[in-house]
Amino acid sequence: MPAKKATHQQTKQHNRDLILKTLFDNPQISRAEIARTTKLTRATVSDMVADLIEEGLVAEVGYGSSIGGRLPVLLSLNADSRYLIGLNLAQDKFIGAVVNLRGEIKETCEAPVGSNNGEQALQIVYQILDQLISTDCKPIVGIGIGTPGLVNAREGIVVNAVNLDWQDLPLARLLETRYHLPVSVLNDSQAMAIGEFVYSGSYKSDDNLIVVNVGYGVGAGILINGRIFQGDGGGAGEIGHVAVQENGVACRCGKYGCLETVASARAVVQRAQVLSETSDPQINSFESLETAFLAGDPLAQRIVTEAGHYLGFSIANLVGTLNIKSILLTGDMTCFGESWLGSVRESMSEAALPRMVQDTQLEIGKLDFRGCILGASASMLLSGYTLLFTQTNNN
Amino acid sequence: MPAKKATHQQTKQHNRDLILKTLFDNPQISRAEIARTTKLTRATVSDMVADLIEEGLVAEVGYGSSIGGRLPVLLSLNADSRYLIGLNLAQDKFIGAVVNLRGEIKETCEAPVGSNNGEQALQIVYQILDQLISTDCKPIVGIGIGTPGLVNAREGIVVNAVNLDWQDLPLARLLETRYHLPVSVLNDSQAMAIGEFVYSGSYKSDDNLIVVNVGYGVGAGILINGRIFQGDGGGAGEIGHVAVQENGVACRCGKYGCLETVASARAVVQRAQVLSETSDPQINSFESLETAFLAGDPLAQRIVTEAGHYLGFSIANLVGTLNIKSILLTGDMTCFGESWLGSVRESMSEAALPRMVQDTQLEIGKLDFRGCILGASASMLLSGYTLLFTQTNNN
Repeated sequence: MPAKKATHQQTKQHNRDLILKTLFDNPQISRAEIARTTKLTRATVSDMVADLIEEGLVAEVGYGSSIGGRLPVLLSLNADSRYLIGLNLAQDKFIGAVVNLRGEIKETCEAPVGSNNGEQALQIVYQILDQLISTDCKPIVGIGIGTPGLVNAREGIVVNAVNLDWQDLPLARLLETRYHLPVSVLNDSQAMAIGEFVYSGSYKSDDNLIVVNVGYGVGAGILINGRIFQGDGGGAGEIGHVAVQENGVACRCGKYGCLETVASARAVVQRAQVLSETSDPQINSFESLETAFLAGDPLAQRIVTEAGHYLGFSIANLVGTLNIKSILLTGDMTCFGESWLGSVRESMSEAALPRMVQDTQLEIGKLDFRGCILGASASMLLSGYTLLFTQTNNN
Repeated sequence: MPAKKATHQQTKQHNRDLILKTLFDNPQISRAEIARTTKLTRATVSDMVADLIEEGLVAEVGYGSSIGGRLPVLLSLNADSRYLIGLNLAQDKFIGAVVNLRGEIKETCEAPVGSNNGEQALQIVYQILDQLISTDCKPIVGIGIGTPGLVNAREGIVVNAVNLDWQDLPLARLLETRYHLPVSVLNDSQAMAIGEFVYSGSYKSDDNLIVVNVGYGVGAGILINGRIFQGDGGGAGEIGHVAVQENGVACRCGKYGCLETVASARAVVQRAQVLSETSDPQINSFESLETAFLAGDPLAQRIVTEAGHYLGFSIANLVGTLNIKSILLTGDMTCFGESWLGSVRESMSEAALPRMVQDTQLEIGKLDFRGCILGASASMLLSGYTLLFTQTNNN
């Protein structure tokens, strides 16, 4: 229950949000249908739509069919009336994109990240953003960042990202100062989860969803009632650094036997390097593992299957803890397709309660690396259309 | 964002809820303070308070201090103006109680549950409720049940409770038909979590909290923004039946190596029975294990510590998954106190990310077996003061 009574201004903003959301959910819709969907009066809808048309956010795009009387005018969100920037810092290269209000990628820019130097990594972020902001896509109304590591999303601080050598970096503040735009900073797996939720077209706005992102690292994003759940410290979904093996190998986080050391893309490459030292083909990269796997190499298949089994046990924990029925897998490891997915499913079923497993749908996500970019940009939509749509008219 | 616009009736109910919640949170409070806290107008507060006084829910109890002008009249929720029944089905005996609006237990009733016959267990529920309803505490406005097993709380169905031999039992409907009162059915660990949240006095209304209940079985209750999260199938928190040991012993759920087989009160007794067969003292019950443990018996201490370690690893999974900083332990195993808690903390710290562990407070809960009863009854308060407070005046 909300703790405060709504003011008039908040009510107006709430109605505006409702109408925008309805326009976002429907490619074309009449004023009358908006009124029906939102339960607002026709007059309120008409007034607000007039404002939105004046601001260029909404356009009249044609006529619908009628069951008698005048043909209704159809409205549509003007997808290219505002743009967002999404940035994925989770790979060995940073990838940024300008996307429109429908998540269509308009421009991209990427740069390799070689070193482990925090200041250099930050400079590369600036370079990419400088370039994306100078394209013809205007106005840009916000920047969303998906970064590996532990993030305090409320304050936009990267608490700890080992690979990027960032500790307590106030990334949102730095970027807001430089670009004078609102900035949202999210963990990359959380961003990926938002991307799948908003843009894969499968979810209703109050659904629950878990996305487990299995790449170089392993992390999850958890949506509860359509909102990303970040926990008290922003680290919800950090399942990659929970120990799953007693006496396991050292993890880059400093501990031993973490899920990442047995289930990630990094883990399978390391294991393949060790086990294939004297065999043919010799496997020394993710690409060569993928090639060997697809060629039916038994060692490659065994390594991938084992990694899938470890992941399945951790997913059983998610099932037992949250009982969320839709779970998606994303990230590099999904390139191993059905046979990897099969091994994940097998150990999940073995380790979780049958009554709960039978209602769980574990699938591979629909978006690829773009998921993180789209999710990072969409995080501004989810955090209230307010932020996004009031930016340019100073409400 | 809510999908629907509020109607006038809903607004009125919302304001009523806000005022009742403010009265619930404050032992004594003036109309002016209620207006400040809720941001409602003084007139709205006065009108609504007049209604509440007429209904007997609120009373004027004295005068507060003034900083000039008239002394303000202090209001208080009339704790004994309505009663609730809470019922805990999680023990080897069923325990029920009549509680008032402040969670004070007025009457109790219990009955042993010997057999494994579902119909008999249901008859015992009826006996206890018949007796509690016939006490002098009136009016009773709702019944809350905390039951072991998987529960579909929305429909009030016990999906599966192995010990009670209940499958797909429509418990809420049966009780509503018999008693003509609203009934809420919850998993016992979820009920325990609500009890600790509402009545231990430590939590703000939008806090997150995990309560891990370690008794005969093991289960958790998860509160997110002050509301119990039950997952899509009602089974959120069912961590007791996630496998934690490869090649582990058989669990009563039919699987092997579940957390319950190594961390529960049942598990330690079974292990003690096996290991103490030839030793002195011979341990063959939870009570004798407790006695041996308190007397410093090394075998008893080892068994308890090992159980704590297994639990700690599972709690590390909760920390990594949810990053909720307050975690409470409840249930029989808490009788082993600090040394058991220490072993849980130790393995939690070993298995979860240090940055996340350092912000986690793992403590023993404040309520004992009453937690489940209080939580079951309070679930009706949490599910909307609406239900509770409009029942007797047909709004």
